[in-house]
Amino acid sequence: MKQKISYCLADIAARFGGRLLGDADVVVQQIATLDSAGKHHISFLSNSKYRSQLAATGAGAVILGEADADATTLPRIVCDNPYAYFAKVSALLNPLPQAVPGIHPSAVIGEGAQVDPSAHIGAHVAIGSGAMIGAGCVIMEGCSVGDRTVIGSNARFYPRVVVYHDCVIGNNLIAHSGVVIGADGFGMAMEDGRWLKIPQIGRVVIGDDVEIGANTTIDRGALDDTVIEEGVKLDNQIQIAHNVRIGAHTAIAGCAGIAGSTSIGRYCRIGGSAGILGHLQIVDHVEIASFTLIGKSIREAGSYAGIFPFARSEEWRKTAAHLRHLDELAHKVKALKHEIEALKGKTE
Amino acid sequence: MKQKISYCLADIAARFGGRLLGDADVVVQQIATLDSAGKHHISFLSNSKYRSQLAATGAGAVILGEADADATTLPRIVCDNPYAYFAKVSALLNPLPQAVPGIHPSAVIGEGAQVDPSAHIGAHVAIGSGAMIGAGCVIMEGCSVGDRTVIGSNARFYPRVVVYHDCVIGNNLIAHSGVVIGADGFGMAMEDGRWLKIPQIGRVVIGDDVEIGANTTIDRGALDDTVIEEGVKLDNQIQIAHNVRIGAHTAIAGCAGIAGSTSIGRYCRIGGSAGILGHLQIVDHVEIASFTLIGKSIREAGSYAGIFPFARSEEWRKTAAHLRHLDELAHKVKALKHEIEALKGKTE
Amino acid sequence: MKQKISYCLADIAARFGGRLLGDADVVVQQIATLDSAGKHHISFLSNSKYRSQLAATGAGAVILGEADADATTLPRIVCDNPYAYFAKVSALLNPLPQAVPGIHPSAVIGEGAQVDPSAHIGAHVAIGSGAMIGAGCVIMEGCSVGDRTVIGSNARFYPRVVVYHDCVIGNNLIAHSGVVIGADGFGMAMEDGRWLKIPQIGRVVIGDDVEIGANTTIDRGALDDTVIEEGVKLDNQIQIAHNVRIGAHTAIAGCAGIAGSTSIGRYCRIGGSAGILGHLQIVDHVEIASFTLIGKSIREAGSYAGIFPFARSEEWRKTAAHLRHLDELAHKVKALKHEIEALKGKTE
Repeated sequence: MKQKISYCLADIAARFGGRLLGDADVVVQQIATLDSAGKHHISFLSNSKYRSQLAATGAGAVILGEADADATTLPRIVCDNPYAYFAKVSALLNPLPQAVPGIHPSAVIGEGAQVDPSAHIGAHVAIGSGAMIGAGCVIMEGCSVGDRTVIGSNARFYPRVVVYHDCVIGNNLIAHSGVVIGADGFGMAMEDGRWLKIPQIGRVVIGDDVEIGANTTIDRGALDDTVIEEGVKLDNQIQIAHNVRIGAHTAIAGCAGIAGSTSIGRYCRIGGSAGILGHLQIVDHVEIASFTLIGKSIREAGSYAGIFPFARSEEWRKTAAHLRHLDELAHKVKALKHEIEALKGKTE
Repeated sequence: MKQKISYCLADIAARFGGRLLGDADVVVQQIATLDSAGKHHISFLSNSKYRSQLAATGAGAVILGEADADATTLPRIVCDNPYAYFAKVSALLNPLPQAVPGIHPSAVIGEGAQVDPSAHIGAHVAIGSGAMIGAGCVIMEGCSVGDRTVIGSNARFYPRVVVYHDCVIGNNLIAHSGVVIGADGFGMAMEDGRWLKIPQIGRVVIGDDVEIGANTTIDRGALDDTVIEEGVKLDNQIQIAHNVRIGAHTAIAGCAGIAGSTSIGRYCRIGGSAGILGHLQIVDHVEIASFTLIGKSIREAGSYAGIFPFARSEEWRKTAAHLRHLDELAHKVKALKHEIEALKGKTE
Repeated sequence: MKQKISYCLADIAARFGGRLLGDADVVVQQIATLDSAGKHHISFLSNSKYRSQLAATGAGAVILGEADADATTLPRIVCDNPYAYFAKVSALLNPLPQAVPGIHPSAVIGEGAQVDPSAHIGAHVAIGSGAMIGAGCVIMEGCSVGDRTVIGSNARFYPRVVVYHDCVIGNNLIAHSGVVIGADGFGMAMEDGRWLKIPQIGRVVIGDDVEIGANTTIDRGALDDTVIEEGVKLDNQIQIAHNVRIGAHTAIAGCAGIAGSTSIGRYCRIGGSAGILGHLQIVDHVEIASFTLIGKSIREAGSYAGIFPFARSEEWRKTAAHLRHLDELAHKVKALKHEIEALKGKTE
């Protein structure tokens, strides 16, 4: 059984700020949505349009913004950013399980590897020779860390993460299961009808406070490095090719793919299954819609999209047929224009 | 060597029904396509349009529908659903290898975990504390099951499957290698230029008779659960985000992505690399074409698509250029309309 | 520390040919881009349009083509295919680490498996019964090879690769972490509202000199085999469905998906996130753009594309709206045509 944690509302406000209204002694043990909350739950309203749910909630307390401060009489904390406040309260009520320092006897540690005594190395882990694992790291079962790879403090590797050799990883990395960091980029040269492999001798370098979702892959650089700057958040099943650079605090949703040598700015948001071709530059604060392929560099911040609108299959088939003949349609319109000009001449 | 299994046609018809025509004593050992079958093979015709292949087949026996009952003189079983019949005969001729009950000495079993004595736990497996593994489960080498996760009976986990903590899985799950169930959903809040992680405290709950393809990922819920109902079939490399619900008997092809909090109905069929945005509702019996992004809820059963038709690159470039100026073209047509109206006035 | 390797330019030219100009005794230890090279580096110019970078490079020597032979006075090797030459020099300067032959004590080897004495079997590897591992293979930690699977010589499996049972793999395969070869294809038959699984009894057969990127999946055939011919190069996170055949020397970029029973020719190049529907035939020497769905067989070599052009979101929304009414627009144009014909009649 996981242990229950409890805080009274006064404790929470003391810790994270905000204006406390109502019973400061109400005790909460968990966070929940307005719909499913019970009396030992604290809930939150981060968008006024769901305000109607406040009336029906069974929550013992609520976090909300100034605009909604009087929308309930429940014990509540009023703050500027209820969604961020919720994140902090949830982290308080749901601390990560304490990892026991030490190396599992089934783990295999390479020659000259340095594992901080406070780190946890799980069952069936392999740490390469000369690798360094920082203080407080939790490397769960079945992970593999390559030779000479350096991992900062407080990393959390879920089971079966692989980091190849010679990579450099900052502090607080969260890597979910199936992540592969540092595999060879896709580089080859054609000669006499055969592909020659180009050795991928760059590294992957990852800044602090990065999170990487399950089964995401980040290839090592061909000659120079692949770089993921601090605070970058990657969802599941993303593919980052060799020599890509992703700017700090950029967030990328699941199944997106970034081709080789592309550089993405800071604070970008990239939608699910989006793609960015290789050797492009994307400036800071660019938002890219899901399912959009970016085929040219983006020099101006803003929001970009390119999605085929879906429809009933029979309507789509019609649209697709017209699309195939768009050139013809454009020519027809031009021809009509000429005919009208001719007619005008006659009627004048 | 795998052992050969043989059945005579009479045995098969006795077991699965259908109308037996021709030599009931013909013995078959394996199932094969009409093209590649030999005399110890049974083959099948599930679509009359391939009827011409019947003449040339070397098969010893054939499964077919009533419409094709007389299209061959080979020993045959005539039935309503030859494709389903084929599935059953193939399962009969190709039983899964018997797993030896017991726990491999290299496996690591957490405190308080309960492994049914009939279950097979392979080499280098890690079972978390308090986890439960049901009767007849086969958990192959290198799998990881998190703390307190409960797995029903007869699950089959191929090598290197990961299930995180606190998930609930029904009976008969087939999970292929690289599957990750229960990793954190992609949830975070922006505050002062930094992302705060939102703990993902929901679970993944999976019904009976589900199959999940290689390297598919299913994230745990943020607060409530992610739910995969009974009989759902997921192909490889699919991404299911947090708090998604997938209705019973829905089948999803490879590389599709379903964004957070979306709910998909029962008996839907979703094509490869399709995407569904977050917070949408898709009713039962919806078919979505490959490569289609669904950006709005679908309230009516039926077939939907949105795919850019491919062409020779030079033609596509022309179409794309016109597409970029579609607004202009529409305005031109409007202007022509006005000019024609004016001309009409003059000629009347 | 990795050991430094040095060659003088004369050694390199003696080994790989080309015309040596300038100081033949200059010693190089590593390869680098023109931008980042120092005096112990050899660099290369494979595209004359970057010729201006030659002036500023700090490289000790350069590889370039005949057209650029006189564009620098640095010691240099002039050759026909500088990019392929670079690949060979890089391989010379960056040999793969020598694997120590032998089987790690934590590996589990099945009954009757044959592992060549020169092969390296890493920690926590599982080799199935009756499997064969050829000379010089390097099977790194945590890999799993299924029963009766045969792997040729000099394969290199990075950590956590899985090959299911009964597959056949040629020589020199490079498989990156997370690759899954031989999982069940997505085959099922609907009967009475439930899916019946169709056993996948074909194999995966892979030719010589194939490379497979991280987390790519290749399903086994349903009845016949899935075939990857020699020299095929697959990037990361690609999905190859059952009974696909990929012709020799074809290269496929990341996140592409090939549906079941499709056959792709030799020397094709398929872009990232492209898709090819099932049961199609693609001839040799076809190039498919990224993000393109191929929905019909391609009978002629050449370059094909189908991508929605991206734009500012507000412009895209306009285009998408017009696209939804393309049928209407086409009808309007037709109607205008008729009106003009009528007007012409009146003015004649």
